Formats: sequence, C-alpha cells, structure tokens
Amino acid sequence: MNSASIRRLDSTAAGFGRELDALLAWEASQDEAIERAVAGILADVRRRGDEAILEYTRRFDRLDAASMAELEIGQGELQAALDGLEPGIRAALEAAAARVRAYHEHQRAASWSFTEDDGTRLGQAVLPLDRAGLYVPGGKAAYPSSVLMNAIPAKVAGVGELIMVVPTPDGARNPLVLAAARIAGVDRVFAIGGAQAVGALAYGTATIPQVDKIVGPGNAYVAEAKRRVFGTVGIDMIAGPSEILIICDGRTDPDWIAMDLFSQAEHDEMAQAILLTPDAGFIERVAQSIERLLPAMPRAAVIEKSLADRGALVKVRDLEEACEIANRIAPEHLEISTDDPQRWADRIRHAGAIFMGRYASESLGDYCAGPNHVLPTMRTARFSSPLGVYDFQKRTSLIEVSAAGAQTLGRIASALAHGEGLQAHARSAEFRLESGG
Amino acid sequence: MNSASIRRLDSTAAGFGRELDALLAWEASQDEAIERAVAGILADVRRRGDEAILEYTRRFDRLDAASMAELEIGQGELQAALDGLEPGIRAALEAAAARVRAYHEHQRAASWSFTEDDGTRLGQAVLPLDRAGLYVPGGKAAYPSSVLMNAIPAKVAGVGELIMVVPTPDGARNPLVLAAARIAGVDRVFAIGGAQAVGALAYGTATIPQVDKIVGPGNAYVAEAKRRVFGTVGIDMIAGPSEILIICDGRTDPDWIAMDLFSQAEHDEMAQAILLTPDAGFIERVAQSIERLLPAMPRAAVIEKSLADRGALVKVRDLEEACEIANRIAPEHLEISTDDPQRWADRIRHAGAIFMGRYASESLGDYCAGPNHVLPTMRTARFSSPLGVYDFQKRTSLIEVSAAGAQTLGRIASALAHGEGLQAHARSAEFRLESGG
Repeated sequence: MNSASIRRLDSTAAGFGRELDALLAWEASQDEAIERAVAGILADVRRRGDEAILEYTRRFDRLDAASMAELEIGQGELQAALDGLEPGIRAALEAAAARVRAYHEHQRAASWSFTEDDGTRLGQAVLPLDRAGLYVPGGKAAYPSSVLMNAIPAKVAGVGELIMVVPTPDGARNPLVLAAARIAGVDRVFAIGGAQAVGALAYGTATIPQVDKIVGPGNAYVAEAKRRVFGTVGIDMIAGPSEILIICDGRTDPDWIAMDLFSQAEHDEMAQAILLTPDAGFIERVAQSIERLLPAMPRAAVIEKSLADRGALVKVRDLEEACEIANRIAPEHLEISTDDPQRWADRIRHAGAIFMGRYASESLGDYCAGPNHVLPTMRTARFSSPLGVYDFQKRTSLIEVSAAGAQTLGRIASALAHGEGLQAHARSAEFRLESGG
Repeated sequence: MNSASIRRLDSTAAGFGRELDALLAWEASQDEAIERAVAGILADVRRRGDEAILEYTRRFDRLDAASMAELEIGQGELQAALDGLEPGIRAALEAAAARVRAYHEHQRAASWSFTEDDGTRLGQAVLPLDRAGLYVPGGKAAYPSSVLMNAIPAKVAGVGELIMVVPTPDGARNPLVLAAARIAGVDRVFAIGGAQAVGALAYGTATIPQVDKIVGPGNAYVAEAKRRVFGTVGIDMIAGPSEILIICDGRTDPDWIAMDLFSQAEHDEMAQAILLTPDAGFIERVAQSIERLLPAMPRAAVIEKSLADRGALVKVRDLEEACEIANRIAPEHLEISTDDPQRWADRIRHAGAIFMGRYASESLGDYCAGPNHVLPTMRTARFSSPLGVYDFQKRTSLIEVSAAGAQTLGRIASALAHGEGLQAHARSAEFRLESGG
C-alpha cells in the first residue's frame, strides 16, 4: 500500500469542517427493488406460514427440507457442536460468555414504587419480554461473538424464550455459531434466514413462535424486513458500517494504533477508521506502520480500500480539540490512547463505547471485556445506546389511588380536563370525589 | 344511544378468540399520497431550510411570516400566557407539573462502573441528550397536559435544550399550551408544524437548531415524517388509537365504569374501550349506565361511534381469565377495579399503565397522578414502555484495560478473532501481550 492513500487532514486548515463532513457522510441506499421484494416475502410468510418458509429456503438457501422439523436444530446438535470444538476455542468462548454475562448483570433494572402520605402508591414494574428473536447471518459474517453479545443480555433480562434463526446455505451449519448458541442458552434454533425468517419471527407460523422483539445484524434484505415489521414487534437499531475513532497523544506504539485502525477497516470496505492526534510526527510514524504491516494482513485488500475511501489521519491542535471533534463524530468505538484517559473521557458526550488507555484495544471489547459489541453507528450515539439488558426489559406504570388521593387528584384532573374539552375525563374524576362531583 | 350497540361477548362462547382478535385488529393505513408528499417536504426543508419552512407555513397554516424571527414565540409571550390563565387552571397545571416532575425523578439512571482485581475497569456512562424536539399538534388536539408529559421527562433527564414546535393555523396561539411550555421549562418555541417542522428539527435550518430526538404526537403527516427521519434523529413510538381495558369484579359503581369507558371513547372514533367482568348482571348495569349517561356528554357522537365500532362488554369466567385476556390484549391503559388489586396486577405481564383500585380512574393518570400519559398502544406494551426519563438519556460503555488485564483478555480475544477470520483483531490484541504476541 502506498501510505499516501490514507488521507491526512489538519484541523487548522481552511475547509477542515467541510472535509470532515464529507468523510463522515454515509447514507444507507434505499433500494426500491429490495423494498418490493421484502414486502412480497413478508406478506407471503404472513399468509402461508411454514409453507412459504420452506419454499423460500429452498429457493434462496438451496436447502430442500420436506418439513419445518428438518429445519430445527435441536439442543443435541448444539451440544455436539460445543463438544466438537478445539479446546482452546471452547475455553475462549466460555470465558468470553462468562465475562459478558457478569457485566450485563449490572444492567438489570428493578421494579420500584413509593407511597404518598394519603396512601396513593406510584411506581413502575420492570419485566422481561416474553419471547425474543435473534437473527444471525449465515456465510462468512457468521460470528459466534455476535451470538453471545445478542443472546446473553436477553437471557440476563429473563426473556422467557429466545429463538435464533440462522440461514445455512446448501445446508452448511457453522459449528462455532451453534456452540455459541448453546453456551448463551438460546432456547430454539431454526436454519432459516433472510426476510422470510424475520417474517416468521414477527408474525409466527405453525412451527415458529411469534416473538416480541427481533435483534441481530443482517444484510440489506434483513434490515429492510426488520424496518417493515417494526411496530408488530420491537427491533434493535439498523446498523451502518462500523467505525473507530482513535484519540492518541502520540506516545502509544504506532504499530498498535495502525493495527487498531486495521481491525476496524478489515470488517468491510465501508468501515471507517480515523486517528486524531496533536503530534504531526506521530501521524508519519503511524503511516509508516500502516505501510509496513499491511502487506502481511490476510484481508489487506479490504483494509486498503476502507482506509483509502473512508480513513483519515488528522492532526489536531490539542487533545481538547480532539474531544470536541469526537463529539461531533459521535463514533461507534472511541479509543483514548493517552495517560489519564478518564480526564479526556469526561469530555466525551457521544460515543457507543470508550476504550480507555493504551492497553484497551477495541478488539478486547469486541470479544471479551464484557460490554456489548452491538453499538450505535452513524452518529446515532447522540441518542442511542449499546445493546443491553434494558433492550429486553419493558416497563409498566403503576398507579394505585386511595380514596383520599382521589380527592386531591380528582380536582386537578377535573380542572385540566375541562380546559381541554374532554368532559368524560372530567366526570370520571369527579365521580370519585366525596362530594359526588 | 341504544345500549345494544356496544357488543357483548362471552369468553366461553365458541369463536370468542376470533371475535376478540377481530375487535383488536387495527392497522395504520399506509397512504402512498402522504408518503410522497412528506418525502417531498422533507427533501425541500433539507435543501432550502428556513425558506422552505416559511413557504409551507404560509401554504398550510395560512400564516404569512416575513422571517423566521416572527415564528419564534419568546419566553415573554410564554410567561404572559401563564400570567393570563384563570387562577384555578394555573394552579392545576402547576400542581400536575410538580407531581409529574417528582415521579419522573425516580427514573433517572446513574453512571456506574466497577474495577476488577487486575485493575481493568468496566462500566457505563449515562448522559442526557444534548437537544430534543417536542412536536405539539395545533387545533383541537392541542393539549397542555401533553406538553407537560413530553417536556418534563426531558428536563428531568437534563437535556441541554428543548425545542418545541406547534402549528398555529391562521396565527391562533393556544395560551394553555404556551403556559404549559413555560411551566415545563421548554427552551425555545416555534409556531410551525406538519412534516416541515419535523424536517426542521431533524436536519436543522439557519434558525432552528438540529435536535437529537423528536417526541410528541401528530397527525398522519407528522407520523410519516418522524418515521422517515428516524436514524438521523431518534423518535418516540408512533402511536395508534388510544385504548382502555377495565377488569372489574362487579362491585364498582357501574356509573364510574361507564364514565371510564367514555373517557377513552371520547378521544376519537377509533379509540377502544373494553370491560372484562365475571359478573353478567354487572354488564347489564354498566350498559344501563351507558345508556343513561351518554346523552349528556358533549362528545356523545364520538363516544357512541367508538363504543359501537370498537368497544365491548365481555363476560369472563373469573378474574384469573380476565388477566390472561389482558395479557393477550396488552392494553395501553388497564384499570383493575377490584379489592386487593395488587393480587391481579401481579399476573399482568403486558400493559402500558395499570390503574389499581376503584378510585384510580384513568383520567387521574392522564393528568396529574405523576406517571407519563404517553404509553405504548396496539399491543406494543409487549416490548415497549411509557415515555420516560430513560428516553432522554443514553449510555456509553466504558472499558479501561490495565496492562495485566490485557494479558488475560488478549489471549481470549486472539483465539476468538482467529476463529472468525479477523486477523487484524487478533494482532491488535496480541500486540498488547507482554510476550509481544
């Protein structure tokens, strides 16, 4: 790679703001052909259920099942996949799962209530979803870590039943994914995918139970299907390309920083990797590391294109300005590779996850530190959060009104209801007044 | 009203399940003309900013402003609206706001972290949104209570700036709404509405700041605009018609129950009001109350159509079965009008809010009990929650890894990354190993 092909920017240059905006710009293409295809598949699954599922699985996955029973992957097969793993991998998966579980236990919210002097009691009940669906992509993007990260928060929340769908093109089942499902405690697994699997989970079929929420990544068809069933079921965010932003004081090994940029860029060509540093010399050292390390990377072609198209090494005035730029970018992953990283983290208002200190590479968080690797992309960290236990819990308000409480509240409600022209609201409150209203 | 025109159902009758499903069925109509119109308006606002806003406001609200400054409603005017209120109404609004604020204080989540033995520290920072937008409908559905319910959780969360938009057709400004905005602490108010106001908040214009999330109810154009800008900004749920389900043991004054059904039905003709009771005689008594009370209601025509089209008085086997049916319906509002209501509330898994005891009419919660009146409709209580402080807070994961921690985590991450074919992830972890990886 010619290292000149990753752009260098300077925050003091005229037009820097515009250049940065152009670099960040990314819009999911709305493809009408995909929209139409997905609408058709969903309507068909809703109408014909299992029969449609079998047909689409035959067509898209070249998997000719005579019945839905053949498409269910039982706990026995999940356990066999786990038992068949190379011991080092199995230990790593189990260690990662244990850490992810321990971290997410901290996120479980509890019901609460309080009682007022007149006996009126108010609060909120926090309950798990009855049933959740987990979409796992097939083929090359079938990541066992993604199974752990999506399934474990649901189980920690106490979701009653967790149904996983994973396409198995030509019948090829990925043992790592099945083993991860077993470790995470997934309840049922079906070898189906695409928009048809999303439809099955959203509407239910004779075989596949209807779920309350669908999470997990997928291709453009899956994303469009999730968008369409939203409202019938809950969904997680629709993710954009993955992003890393690194703030470095210039005193971390440049090879480490180069490899951290690679680890984002290797995901796909649209992934984004940006370095912010006040040290111009460090930018050159990182560029040299990039040049030296890239040829040995198995995914060098993807990394090179991602860095050339969407990457940048940015010289900033100081670390204060780096934090301001980070807030503008609102990155999915933010590494703060400095001494006393908390000092800079305190200035960050928008990021999916902050990796603090020179030793906290993003990859540690991707797999096993404990926090979730499903994070808000494309500046949505301004208003959304990492996937968590809270995505599998929901709240019900509790309002118990005493006879005495109804006297106070009824007068207020009556006045406001009349003000809004809603007389039945007013009368309903007035009926509870001791004067008879 | 002929009371026969509210349907009676019996849970023991053949076909009850099907009848109930038919009664609950409601789908938001997707209107292509609205979709196209909204897409055009949003694109125009994005391109032309304030100029487009002025033009649409002229066209749709018949309000001819020469500049955006004329469309901003300043704090002085909000205060004047508050000062001009009839004292009883003002006291009621202020009392309601104080109660809503006190309740929502309980919902504020705090940042947390923990440190492991090897010095690795994990946690989550919980932060407010920088800026939120609140849509308030104009005309007859301009409810001051809705301003309080949407604005107060944002302010309790600590949102930096809260921007309200409210259309003022023909220039008519609603003093109750403006007074409520003042009480709730809304920062800026613009007299604009429709899809163009949603676009202004989502993209920002020279005058109107871009927000991070838009909440609040609106007509079909507003709902479609919110759907379209989702991703650029966060949005709250798209609400369906309002619903009440009442479970009663038959020992509450039937007039109270009839009026509670009316209070839902008066919202609009699509609103849904259903009673479940094991007492067949009580059904007749409620029907008689409906017949007797309806003619005096100012909104009798709306109530009558709502009850006829979407209402029901349902005889159930017992209160246990009533709770099962309630879970299937997952109502927005659930009244449990019995002795020991907690006993039955413990069986409810899905409801937006539960009103417990004979004195807890829904209208008390709508205005002033304290919990939010923005609640999940159309069975979405299976997976979503009342509007709350948590809708205006978001989380950032924190991952600080010590040199020692990187040794443990790095080995796990390396094994899993190689398993997934992501070698840069593996190398990035291995670089932090003391052996040099």
